Amino acid sequence: MAGIVPSRRVRGTPFSAGVEAAGAQAYTVYNRMLLPSYFESYTADYRHLKDHVQVWDVAVERQVSIKGPDALKLMKRMSPRDMNRMAQDQCYYVPICDHKGGMLNDPVALKIAEDHYWLSIADGDLLQWALGLAIGQNMDVEVFEPDVSPLAVQGPKAEDLMVRVFGEDVRNIRFFRYKRMLFMENEFIVARSGWSKQGGFEIYVEGEYNGMPLWQALFAAGTDLNVRAGCPNLIERIEGGLLSYGSDMRRENTPIEAGLAKFCNSPDDYIGRSVIEAQKAHGPNRIICPIAIEGAEDLPHNALGWNVYNKETWVGLISSATWSPDFNINVAIGMIERGHWDAGTVLQVDTGAGMRQAMIKEKFWI
Amino acid sequence: MAGIVPSRRVRGTPFSAGVEAAGAQAYTVYNRMLLPSYFESYTADYRHLKDHVQVWDVAVERQVSIKGPDALKLMKRMSPRDMNRMAQDQCYYVPICDHKGGMLNDPVALKIAEDHYWLSIADGDLLQWALGLAIGQNMDVEVFEPDVSPLAVQGPKAEDLMVRVFGEDVRNIRFFRYKRMLFMENEFIVARSGWSKQGGFEIYVEGEYNGMPLWQALFAAGTDLNVRAGCPNLIERIEGGLLSYGSDMRRENTPIEAGLAKFCNSPDDYIGRSVIEAQKAHGPNRIICPIAIEGAEDLPHNALGWNVYNKETWVGLISSATWSPDFNINVAIGMIERGHWDAGTVLQVDTGAGMRQAMIKEKFWI
Repeated sequence: MAGIVPSRRVRGTPFSAGVEAAGAQAYTVYNRMLLPSYFESYTADYRHLKDHVQVWDVAVERQVSIKGPDALKLMKRMSPRDMNRMAQDQCYYVPICDHKGGMLNDPVALKIAEDHYWLSIADGDLLQWALGLAIGQNMDVEVFEPDVSPLAVQGPKAEDLMVRVFGEDVRNIRFFRYKRMLFMENEFIVARSGWSKQGGFEIYVEGEYNGMPLWQALFAAGTDLNVRAGCPNLIERIEGGLLSYGSDMRRENTPIEAGLAKFCNSPDDYIGRSVIEAQKAHGPNRIICPIAIEGAEDLPHNALGWNVYNKETWVGLISSATWSPDFNINVAIGMIERGHWDAGTVLQVDTGAGMRQAMIKEKFWI
Repeated sequence: MAGIVPSRRVRGTPFSAGVEAAGAQAYTVYNRMLLPSYFESYTADYRHLKDHVQVWDVAVERQVSIKGPDALKLMKRMSPRDMNRMAQDQCYYVPICDHKGGMLNDPVALKIAEDHYWLSIADGDLLQWALGLAIGQNMDVEVFEPDVSPLAVQGPKAEDLMVRVFGEDVRNIRFFRYKRMLFMENEFIVARSGWSKQGGFEIYVEGEYNGMPLWQALFAAGTDLNVRAGCPNLIERIEGGLLSYGSDMRRENTPIEAGLAKFCNSPDDYIGRSVIEAQKAHGPNRIICPIAIEGAEDLPHNALGWNVYNKETWVGLISSATWSPDFNINVAIGMIERGHWDAGTVLQVDTGAGMRQAMIKEKFWI
């Protein structure tokens, strides 16, 4: 594995001291920040995540703050999702597209106030898209990156741990809703959300200097819950069908192709609308599928994507794949062409280390 | 040094096979691609770069292609630099700013045709800025990332090596100009440019599959010139005052603060104009300076930036610093506040491993 040189340009996070002390063994870079890839191993981290509770440094989920009289107007231009009924404590998963429906990012939007939204972004400078649109259309909004670094608490014991630090009211936070909770002298937004299917919360830590005190408080409170440092887990997220923008879908894909049609219900004139509405009416030419790949726990690392064939015909690409201990199969995410995506279809996958048989599944595993 | 996990999202380049075989020892991530940091060592790479010729994988310099009837109109909106007299074989270093003059990137623009430009970008999705503006203002242009990966040939023997692969006409390429040169069946844009002060060229390789054949041809032709794989070198680029966007200047800085006033001469109504013109008239409140730090070759790694003081007063930040074997001093780049930036001013630098005395220099070292 290649080593990475830290720099001012590729930075650590407010929680890096904790992450390093906890023994992160490998990283990726996400929004020009370090994001741990695993601590003990993908498999050991996965087991622990499903049984206990983990604290994740997801400061890489940078916020794009959109604030001002035209904030909702800009959100409506950018969002295929209906923004009209969004409540002030709500989080919306929002695919963001160009004029041809090509995905530019897939943030979680938080409504902070009537005239203020945060976009908690996937990897990519969505700030520049929002800023370009706002300036191009003379909108009265400020678009900037605030000093906010999310920390996630994930796993079946997440709620119990959170209650110990933030109080009983944590239990009343509904899924993809948030409350403002007090930690020491600071009020942070705490949402029931996170990039796992094990349940949990994301704390939007404002003020870099608040990072380590909160990290330490969570670990101090959770010893008997077996709390550990963790990170988004490759195995668990594929089982759960959680898509990674840049890996599983890109600008060349629409949200309909990414299986996100249900988030494209805006009645407003958003950018990309005509292409997206046409694909909703007629179906896309390819779509994200859950795929099981046969064979044992010996797949090579998939860093490039693997071509998928139906006999002689190229029918798509597998973007993410790994062995699942719980389902005893290689779980995968792939973009498959029309005519070949019915559940039960048997395909062949070129892994670069031999061909494997694979099958389209009805749904993801979790 | 932390290890980095390769993925579809953080990709290799068309030259990665060559880079790995040549023994890159560490990487950074730049535009979601791997960029080598050094091969033998910073110092050994530096010595070789100044004496011989190196081939650099700078595929991370992604191109933003702006093509269509409104291409020049969009360029004029984005560029503080006068675009009116740019010739069709010319390369322009262009700081790109928001409406408050805050730098969003500092690409090299290439004029490909009257209605077609490439922006060879620094780290950051400038594509989303250009696309947002274009769509926001209903401009008739396509904004996309083409399959182009620059390869640099740098060092005093660069011209001799290039002639062997592309022919004698290489010698006629002027600084920051380009010619279309034939390699096998392909015509590539070859510019006299690159992120060193040792002279050399950048080849804009179109078609990923052309990467390794060109890499191999350069190495085969250059054995007696002592050609080696290299990369932008930390020491040489600080000596030469080559700024790194994201490290030395960011959105909170204007191009005037970054010492780039001479590139802000546009007569057109570009974004950020009023702030930039005011700073040109009255001077900025801080500016990039060359700084010499006293002491021996034992500075710690500067990954966060170092605060700079004038006695009790905070006066700026050193963003890049390293030992220079040729100048026998620690060379540094810092942003220094008004009133403290005169050459000869003695300052104190908090390196995190003790205070060091430092001095503002008249100019960079090369």
